[in-house]
Amino acid sequence: MKTTLTQRLMGSALACALAVATTLVQAADALPSWNEGNAKQGIVDFVKRVTAKGSKDFVPPAERIATFDNDGTLWAEQPLYFQLFFALDRVKALAPQHPEWKTKEPFASLLKGDLKGALAGGEPAIFQIVMATHAGMTTEEFEKIVRDWIATAKHPKTGRLYAEMVYQPMLELLRYLRANGFKTFIVSGGGIDFMRVFSEQLYGIPPEQVIGSSGKLKFEFREGKPVLVKLPEIDFIDDKAGKPVGIQKHIGRRPILAFGNSDGDLQMLQWTAAGSGARFMGIVHHTDAEREWAYDRKSSIGRLDKALDEAQAKGWTVVSMKNGWKRIFAFE
Amino acid sequence: MKTTLTQRLMGSALACALAVATTLVQAADALPSWNEGNAKQGIVDFVKRVTAKGSKDFVPPAERIATFDNDGTLWAEQPLYFQLFFALDRVKALAPQHPEWKTKEPFASLLKGDLKGALAGGEPAIFQIVMATHAGMTTEEFEKIVRDWIATAKHPKTGRLYAEMVYQPMLELLRYLRANGFKTFIVSGGGIDFMRVFSEQLYGIPPEQVIGSSGKLKFEFREGKPVLVKLPEIDFIDDKAGKPVGIQKHIGRRPILAFGNSDGDLQMLQWTAAGSGARFMGIVHHTDAEREWAYDRKSSIGRLDKALDEAQAKGWTVVSMKNGWKRIFAFE
Repeated sequence: MKTTLTQRLMGSALACALAVATTLVQAADALPSWNEGNAKQGIVDFVKRVTAKGSKDFVPPAERIATFDNDGTLWAEQPLYFQLFFALDRVKALAPQHPEWKTKEPFASLLKGDLKGALAGGEPAIFQIVMATHAGMTTEEFEKIVRDWIATAKHPKTGRLYAEMVYQPMLELLRYLRANGFKTFIVSGGGIDFMRVFSEQLYGIPPEQVIGSSGKLKFEFREGKPVLVKLPEIDFIDDKAGKPVGIQKHIGRRPILAFGNSDGDLQMLQWTAAGSGARFMGIVHHTDAEREWAYDRKSSIGRLDKALDEAQAKGWTVVSMKNGWKRIFAFE
Repeated sequence: MKTTLTQRLMGSALACALAVATTLVQAADALPSWNEGNAKQGIVDFVKRVTAKGSKDFVPPAERIATFDNDGTLWAEQPLYFQLFFALDRVKALAPQHPEWKTKEPFASLLKGDLKGALAGGEPAIFQIVMATHAGMTTEEFEKIVRDWIATAKHPKTGRLYAEMVYQPMLELLRYLRANGFKTFIVSGGGIDFMRVFSEQLYGIPPEQVIGSSGKLKFEFREGKPVLVKLPEIDFIDDKAGKPVGIQKHIGRRPILAFGNSDGDLQMLQWTAAGSGARFMGIVHHTDAEREWAYDRKSSIGRLDKALDEAQAKGWTVVSMKNGWKRIFAFE
């Protein structure tokens, strides 16, 4: 018994040493990839206000909920959402098992390399592609497929792994918030089962803190073992007005900080802004055609129009990637 | 700057002192309301196996997911689910605004005090009562109603607040697991928005770790402010085969420990059991007619029949309340 107790106390001592080390890191610049300016200053001021004991804006740690969109906010989303590239890769991989796709749209165009033709069918075409590649298997089978893909698949423009195309300043922000007692969540229109495979590794966000769009699931037994089968039927779309709904379903508390980059995030930002006490609403503005992409009001992917107007009217923080970020990707 | 740093280091020092104190508490008996016996021993052995560094059954903290049913597992559920008592109280409170209820079942019987008659309509009757009392308001309005109710409403048999009718041994178990790096979740057929109001206060489980049944929500603006309106439409039933689905939707990881008390928990227990590595499946068996209630295979509330057979066949831990628990409620 004595030994066990000693070992446990040693464990605590080690944890203490780590806590002190973390404190020292915090005291230095926690956001080195952010240029000095309004955005960075606004974030740091907000965090100080809600964490300082005795501050009139103090928020208990349990209520320090921060929500982040994923595509275009934590990682890139051009020229297509990365999950759509995943789906396209899967269509190619599955084609031998589906001879009928040779003559069936949108698969036929896709397999001929005509991406534009395939996506000409709009949302119904995308729905078909997503369902053919995200359903009809168990959750464990899907997880393995995504795990293999994210470890190897490369972006067509940069030649980098998709997993490398995360924004370094946002990784620093996530870490900084967590070091200050925040609980960080992803709230994305992307597939929940897709993102959860890599959210911990890429962002330090565990699967239970990922909120996304989902298909229906069915519990059944296969060869005597219980499995969850992914059905080709939409359960929930976590986009636009769905984002506050997704936040309520999963968290049951209103965020005090939210970050997005497109009109799909507007309602999440409005919902965050409408709470009482100190709030922070941020928008990543894609303004850097050289280091990343430049797009906003007219883009079909990640359109930022109404949310940009509202941010300007309400004084939310708009971060220009070009001016606000010293570095965009870690590989730069 | 120097002062801030000093203050932060002081904060870390305080956290360290607390951590050491916690370690000392852990070393003593963390489950004082449990009688010595197989159930208690099984729990302690399991926790040691999955937390001991170097153990072949070691599980990293992030994967130490523990899920608990609520009604009949964390608090009592007789003679009716407490949430149904809440709904009945609400029908009485709302009756003046609904003169039509005087002649409309199941409300008419209910308002005359004829509970049996009201519930004779079975599930459709219960559905009507639940929807009339859980929808048609914003999530914030509902939260306030539940908060007021849980603070004052008393159980018809014991005369105690419902909030006091939580099982002391299970509170100790939740605390013991968390002290050992587990993340504790509720996975209940009860309403998610209902439980979240008191889960943190009663069980130390934050709202984002509560999974339950839910109605659909709608985001809209009222008087210029965004709200989430609770619609009279079921979104998800977190019971039976719904429990593993709810676990996947919310957590995205399989539990390594699960506790239930009825056939509604069977699939959650099967799902937990089917994972690889060390597992713990527990069932609370209501065997104490004097201190609580005694019921199992023939009860309409909390029926325990198939799950009891499977527990016996598979060697899951069945905790007899009569023999396993020194104390059931804190007020004893």
